[in-house]
Amino acid sequence: MAAIAATPRLSATATEAAIAALKQLLGDRLSTATAVREQHGHDESWAPAFPPDAVAFVESTDEVAEVVKICAAHGMPMIPFGAGTSLEGHVTAPQGGLCIDMMRMNALLKVNVEDLDVVVQPGITRKALNEQLRDTGLFFPIDPGANASIGGMVSTRASGTNAVRYGTMRENVLALTVVLSDGRVIRTSKRAKKSAAGYDLTRLFVGSEGTLGIVTEITLRLYGIPEAMSSAVCGFDSLEGAVRTVIATIQSGIPVARIELLDDVQLDAINKYSKLDYRVCNTLFLEFHGTEAGVKEQAEMVQAIAAEHGGADFQWTVKPEERAKLWQARHDAAYAAKALRSGCEIWATDVCVPISRLAECILETKADLKDSFLIAPLVGHVGDGNFHLAFVVDRGNPAEVAESERINARLVQRALAMEGTCTGEHGVGSGKMKYLVAEHGEAVSVMRAIKKALDPDNLMNPGKIFSV
Amino acid sequence: MAAIAATPRLSATATEAAIAALKQLLGDRLSTATAVREQHGHDESWAPAFPPDAVAFVESTDEVAEVVKICAAHGMPMIPFGAGTSLEGHVTAPQGGLCIDMMRMNALLKVNVEDLDVVVQPGITRKALNEQLRDTGLFFPIDPGANASIGGMVSTRASGTNAVRYGTMRENVLALTVVLSDGRVIRTSKRAKKSAAGYDLTRLFVGSEGTLGIVTEITLRLYGIPEAMSSAVCGFDSLEGAVRTVIATIQSGIPVARIELLDDVQLDAINKYSKLDYRVCNTLFLEFHGTEAGVKEQAEMVQAIAAEHGGADFQWTVKPEERAKLWQARHDAAYAAKALRSGCEIWATDVCVPISRLAECILETKADLKDSFLIAPLVGHVGDGNFHLAFVVDRGNPAEVAESERINARLVQRALAMEGTCTGEHGVGSGKMKYLVAEHGEAVSVMRAIKKALDPDNLMNPGKIFSV
Repeated sequence: MAAIAATPRLSATATEAAIAALKQLLGDRLSTATAVREQHGHDESWAPAFPPDAVAFVESTDEVAEVVKICAAHGMPMIPFGAGTSLEGHVTAPQGGLCIDMMRMNALLKVNVEDLDVVVQPGITRKALNEQLRDTGLFFPIDPGANASIGGMVSTRASGTNAVRYGTMRENVLALTVVLSDGRVIRTSKRAKKSAAGYDLTRLFVGSEGTLGIVTEITLRLYGIPEAMSSAVCGFDSLEGAVRTVIATIQSGIPVARIELLDDVQLDAINKYSKLDYRVCNTLFLEFHGTEAGVKEQAEMVQAIAAEHGGADFQWTVKPEERAKLWQARHDAAYAAKALRSGCEIWATDVCVPISRLAECILETKADLKDSFLIAPLVGHVGDGNFHLAFVVDRGNPAEVAESERINARLVQRALAMEGTCTGEHGVGSGKMKYLVAEHGEAVSVMRAIKKALDPDNLMNPGKIFSV
Repeated sequence: MAAIAATPRLSATATEAAIAALKQLLGDRLSTATAVREQHGHDESWAPAFPPDAVAFVESTDEVAEVVKICAAHGMPMIPFGAGTSLEGHVTAPQGGLCIDMMRMNALLKVNVEDLDVVVQPGITRKALNEQLRDTGLFFPIDPGANASIGGMVSTRASGTNAVRYGTMRENVLALTVVLSDGRVIRTSKRAKKSAAGYDLTRLFVGSEGTLGIVTEITLRLYGIPEAMSSAVCGFDSLEGAVRTVIATIQSGIPVARIELLDDVQLDAINKYSKLDYRVCNTLFLEFHGTEAGVKEQAEMVQAIAAEHGGADFQWTVKPEERAKLWQARHDAAYAAKALRSGCEIWATDVCVPISRLAECILETKADLKDSFLIAPLVGHVGDGNFHLAFVVDRGNPAEVAESERINARLVQRALAMEGTCTGEHGVGSGKMKYLVAEHGEAVSVMRAIKKALDPDNLMNPGKIFSV
């Protein structure tokens, strides 16, 4: 990681005093070991690492509240930390402070099978959650690829391949328990599926990246595991044809569960990495959920739409092993990209645009890449208008880093000009702060006013989303 | 309406000065006529009427911003007003002030067919919107019964019969233009289907009942009109059987579009009012959307589930005229209730609970009613755990009013004890303010902090949701 010096908020003496108080509360569960601090100073992104002054391994809401009160009394920044899989530098400590590691709070507290909901602690990962749900016939569909913690997914408003059918974390969090910046504990909502009782605090905290409080308990919506699932692959002569197929599919109301685009560069990388032999072209990966008759009907309808738009060799299957192979390859897209050049790292970026502008946005981006020396495979949750570039970069080469920055900036500006957003699902973190005013204008001042109202001393994950 | 005196915020002189300034801006579109003020001093609820000092008929976002600046300069409360169909006293002026009538801002500004979205002004009603969309093959599904304005539906976080499939206003608003309390104008989001860029201001304003700003433009999600629709009616021997059928239907992932419960009292009222001859018992009204094969399959699956739970004579139809008749009868439920006693009014209340508690909540409520002299038919969007009582009350009889209050309070306390909410879809307004702390506890202080940050002088629809 790049060696950028943090700008500590507190003096060494004040930090020592805060750590002493925390140590008294937590004992061995407060660590200042260099290795532990360094491990907690970065996520999986390109953003520079900033280790915290200490790491607290918390075990309950009450304990988080006590930790927060100590930090608040000493003016010490607090950064909640989950699986560390975020992609825009969400968990770094640029002003020093305490990293609050939530991963020991990983219990599934209660499944309410009849209500299709579950109450969990934030440190449970999405895979662990689904493993523990297996016997209930229910599942939690949101799948950002990485085995993220549910708390982290709440904080970044994560989504992923299933969002086209099941929505994002925005739609699938029913209620939160949150420790505020002064240690007070609130519950944002009851467990009813809908409510019109007051401001929607649940949605305010979802996507707030730990800047307004620390989430310590989460109620999530669940879904019945579909009776039948099928997947399909279809290659296209043109990118427009693939995107037109997506638009027509969604307009027809076909409840496709996944509809993913992989460009020719990404498909080639996947073929090599996952030892597959798909035709190298712009390709859609699809999945259908429903009854047996339903998934057959859905696949036939999409096949007919694809055929109208130059989609040949539409292949669909209900075999679980073939489905698993397909989606494993899709989930390994970033590793496949990384394998294209040895010794390089991946800089992942994402934008989201109205789907009517998607083909244009992707084509202009690919034209940029064609004119560049960079390699950057493209994958997208195209049913939502959301796509990713994975720059394959040698961090030691300043020209490559500068070129990635240039193309990323052009990508974001293009998305904004098309009424899109600078990030569809990764979040702002520190990486995309510079684009927030370009996207939201005066609305950022409203976000700042809310931040100031709830965290007047700017102690909660400072240096993220926007400057204060 | 009851004659309760308002407590004016401003002196008569200050009010006159504000009105003079507004008159200069708006000319004839600023009215102080008694009839106009009285018409704008109440909604369709039981809550006491409080006429504003004046009514402004605004025509653009810029004009709303100018109006707000004048009111802010004079310290005059502002109450946005739509179709006036809200049900908890949302639009009254208990502190006097300016009613801002939004109904002239009723344009459909842009349909983006490929993106399945539409940009509208707040004064368009949901029926007018769907009429203007007809040629596009798209529709906006949220249907609270009344022909509400879209702006009012945003402000109350409305939902209705289709919410079980399509969600509520929470899920279906993509972006808002809002005039803040000082006249600044913000856009809460771009038009992308999802975003992880900053705080979710869209969801913060949805359901904020005009207390944080005035919504002047709305981007909504649309859906393709289904290829096929069918409806069904099924009577049940027991209430539990009906609710068990709903739970099993939703757990099975059957994408039912509507699943409505009408109790025996309501069904009897509907039979009489709409000249129908359904068996008088607890009854489900259902609707299915999908392909022709799909709606047939869905209906057959629900029929099988219903049969297991004592649901006999399941009748389904694809005939549009029979479907229309069924849903007209459902939408006329309140009129049917009112027709049960001449000279009486309806006091409509709603709660929402986790569906596992729904049967219990309804049965206890019906036991209350059995022990009471009041009549109150019950209908429910039971797929969401949401149900309504319509007290049929003679307003001139204090004993009836007191009894309605008593049963309503017990209903809310019961819903809260079952992890439910004091209102699933009507909103808080003035009518349910007294329950907000019981529901949300310390979280209300967070709502107050946000209110204070965005409206420090408490000028935006004061006296609603919570005391400041």
